[in-house]
Amino acid sequence: MSHDNPRQEQEIKYSEGLEQGLYEELLPEIQKLPTIEVAEILMELSEEGFLEVFPLFTREQQAQIFSDLGFDLQYLLFDHLDPWQFAGIFEEVLSEVRADFFQEISREEQIQLLPYLIKSVRKDVIELSKYPPETAGGIMSTDFATVLESMSTTEAIAKVRSDAPSKKMVYYIYVVDNNMAMKGFITLKDLIMAEPHQKVGDILKSEFVYAGIEDDRETVAMQIEKYDLVAIPVLNQKNQLVGIVTHDEAIEIMRAEHVEDMEQFMGLAKSDEEADYLDDPVKKHYSKRIIWLASLAVLSVFSGIIVQQYEDMLAQVLILTLFMPMMTATGGNTGSQAATVVITALSVGQITLKNWLQIIFKESRVGMLLGMSLGVLTYINVLIIGSQSEAPLDYTLFYVAMVVGIAMTIQVFSATLIGACLPLFVKRLGGDPTVAASPAITTFVDITGLIIYFGTATLFFTII
Amino acid sequence: MSHDNPRQEQEIKYSEGLEQGLYEELLPEIQKLPTIEVAEILMELSEEGFLEVFPLFTREQQAQIFSDLGFDLQYLLFDHLDPWQFAGIFEEVLSEVRADFFQEISREEQIQLLPYLIKSVRKDVIELSKYPPETAGGIMSTDFATVLESMSTTEAIAKVRSDAPSKKMVYYIYVVDNNMAMKGFITLKDLIMAEPHQKVGDILKSEFVYAGIEDDRETVAMQIEKYDLVAIPVLNQKNQLVGIVTHDEAIEIMRAEHVEDMEQFMGLAKSDEEADYLDDPVKKHYSKRIIWLASLAVLSVFSGIIVQQYEDMLAQVLILTLFMPMMTATGGNTGSQAATVVITALSVGQITLKNWLQIIFKESRVGMLLGMSLGVLTYINVLIIGSQSEAPLDYTLFYVAMVVGIAMTIQVFSATLIGACLPLFVKRLGGDPTVAASPAITTFVDITGLIIYFGTATLFFTII
Repeated sequence: MSHDNPRQEQEIKYSEGLEQGLYEELLPEIQKLPTIEVAEILMELSEEGFLEVFPLFTREQQAQIFSDLGFDLQYLLFDHLDPWQFAGIFEEVLSEVRADFFQEISREEQIQLLPYLIKSVRKDVIELSKYPPETAGGIMSTDFATVLESMSTTEAIAKVRSDAPSKKMVYYIYVVDNNMAMKGFITLKDLIMAEPHQKVGDILKSEFVYAGIEDDRETVAMQIEKYDLVAIPVLNQKNQLVGIVTHDEAIEIMRAEHVEDMEQFMGLAKSDEEADYLDDPVKKHYSKRIIWLASLAVLSVFSGIIVQQYEDMLAQVLILTLFMPMMTATGGNTGSQAATVVITALSVGQITLKNWLQIIFKESRVGMLLGMSLGVLTYINVLIIGSQSEAPLDYTLFYVAMVVGIAMTIQVFSATLIGACLPLFVKRLGGDPTVAASPAITTFVDITGLIIYFGTATLFFTII
Repeated sequence: MSHDNPRQEQEIKYSEGLEQGLYEELLPEIQKLPTIEVAEILMELSEEGFLEVFPLFTREQQAQIFSDLGFDLQYLLFDHLDPWQFAGIFEEVLSEVRADFFQEISREEQIQLLPYLIKSVRKDVIELSKYPPETAGGIMSTDFATVLESMSTTEAIAKVRSDAPSKKMVYYIYVVDNNMAMKGFITLKDLIMAEPHQKVGDILKSEFVYAGIEDDRETVAMQIEKYDLVAIPVLNQKNQLVGIVTHDEAIEIMRAEHVEDMEQFMGLAKSDEEADYLDDPVKKHYSKRIIWLASLAVLSVFSGIIVQQYEDMLAQVLILTLFMPMMTATGGNTGSQAATVVITALSVGQITLKNWLQIIFKESRVGMLLGMSLGVLTYINVLIIGSQSEAPLDYTLFYVAMVVGIAMTIQVFSATLIGACLPLFVKRLGGDPTVAASPAITTFVDITGLIIYFGTATLFFTII
């Protein structure tokens, strides 16, 4: 972005200026910026500076800035402002942000805040805080505009005009009956386009996509994506319109799921709190990582036990030890790759569990090709490395290379199948296929690889 | 989603019904559905069925359905419809979809299509097709509404009303001068809220976020995310408004980048064409995967060479072979984890290259803790497995366990640092840090791990 760095530099300049108390010069400039940038500027200030500058904005700006602050600074305001003043700002804040803040503070603090709020906001906050954050109810907003089917379009525009200052999302206007049961929707564009004599019912879109209040937030985001929506209505069991989830919320969800996927993929423990690389203490990093590592290390006892079974053979054909790391590493890479391909195809909906037979068939053929290629490559590798080693009694190096190459072919073939099937298997059991990713697969394939390697070797080195 | 499966079942029912020719009963129902669902229904039909049903929709519906079809079916229409008829539909299609289709067809086919298009569309298609698909220009749409600063709000509403049927995005209305230089924007909501006597200039937001025409598409998506925009304007070098990128495009970009990250993460070759798991032939899967696997297999020659240097020691202290797989596997897991943590923190912007010293310091401490924990665990592992093996001459099993445990501590510590630093290093060189992910790290750490293992062993088994 050509103009991002100048913007960031400007933000830093403003922060420094404010800290020095240059309010009169800077505030008129800063007030023109998008509120996310104002929030970024304020976040750079000292606590005292922040508490001094924040009240200089208008009530409306304060409410918008509040939405873009982290919980720490939101709490600082809650803690230091006069309760009436805080409540006044809080009432103007977006409903979903209010609910998030309310869920974060303690029960005592909730009770302390509630009496200062006007009744409608009090009800709204309590209602929205009821839903778990991973559901549609937990992320929805109650800032939407409604009209009745029987209104004329002129009446509807008047209703939206009178409602809108308090509503963020007026691009879709929801049509409800007197019990808030949703009948359909119209867009603000439809309303502008309509002739004055038309009724809302005439331009109403009665086929609409909606989310249930208990739907998983990822499903909700996927619907917003599929139908290219600016917002999706959320209905309760009685088909009453209780909220909306907006497109920006969908992007945030997808971003969060992306990070979660990547982390889970590498065996990092999930944590409820939000992570921040630099701020999190070493202890938190440690505990997030050790669980998987330790479990996998315990599992790798098996690889030791397997090698142990073949100690006698290794003592005689010591050259075999040279290729153990190659065998396990290539298997791990192959298996992780196959797992990634299958997990990605599952997550973007290209395949489902129903396709399992096709998947296995396809992976078998891919695995066969990969196995043969890597088998040949290994044959050559062994000849190169082995030429420096003592060949075992009775066997030529070519024979050893052939045996190791065959073992590699089998290992790659089986690792491909294991990598592809394990995620399907986990999903079949109702789990998240992502857990069957790289570290799990690598450990699993290490063990099967050693069995294959020594099994093949036993076959070829005792028959002759 | 409680209501997704019924919808899918309904789609299948409709497809089957259409295939049987039940147009009269089904079409009125189908025409009420969102066009993405209509497209899904049509995609299930045979080619003949599709070509028979498609013309039964209105021109406007045809244009919308066209946007949601894959290229194959779009091309089928291009190939089979009368050119005038196709051009008529094509002119109604969203500008970015038109440009994408135009870029996909051959030069001859482009020349064949152009004469049938009206002049404004012809110019638009040629203009939009000029930009590479990974830039703002390549994904932007030219369907936006503009007004002049000097207009009254009443005039502006009239202008939007007359423009809007052909414009998809009227929620933001862009304010330009006579040379199309962008002065600011107003929202449709502002316009509805404004008093009739106000001028556009009075409610204009002159501070706005925009993208440059050559900006990377991921940067554009991140801006839409950061500022919670419904659309972002795209300006050329002369600050003229040339297009907009909408929020649904941002979601698509993020989804695509997610898949790309995951795939790159596991060493899958990038391909220009879109991948589809089931449709792609085995050969394509194979060639996508073999490159990395073969490169890594070649690299693993080094692990063989290292083991070779210590063949004599292994012959005497054969018990050491038992713990080689454990050593490389745990190192690989630790390194991949550290890399994932750093790559994720980089990609969500929690850290930048400037923090490198802090990162190394933090990872050193985390690595130390992890190393000590896993060292102790390994000590116990060795005692358990080793009790079944012959202890080497002169050394007790406790001594062997201690040596292996110490090697593991060093290996985990160094793997953590390697995993954390490699992505930073790649980024420093201007590359994408994601390439320094799992497979590369594993292979790297395998090699250093064997050096550490045998190095430590040499130290302890020769000193005594």
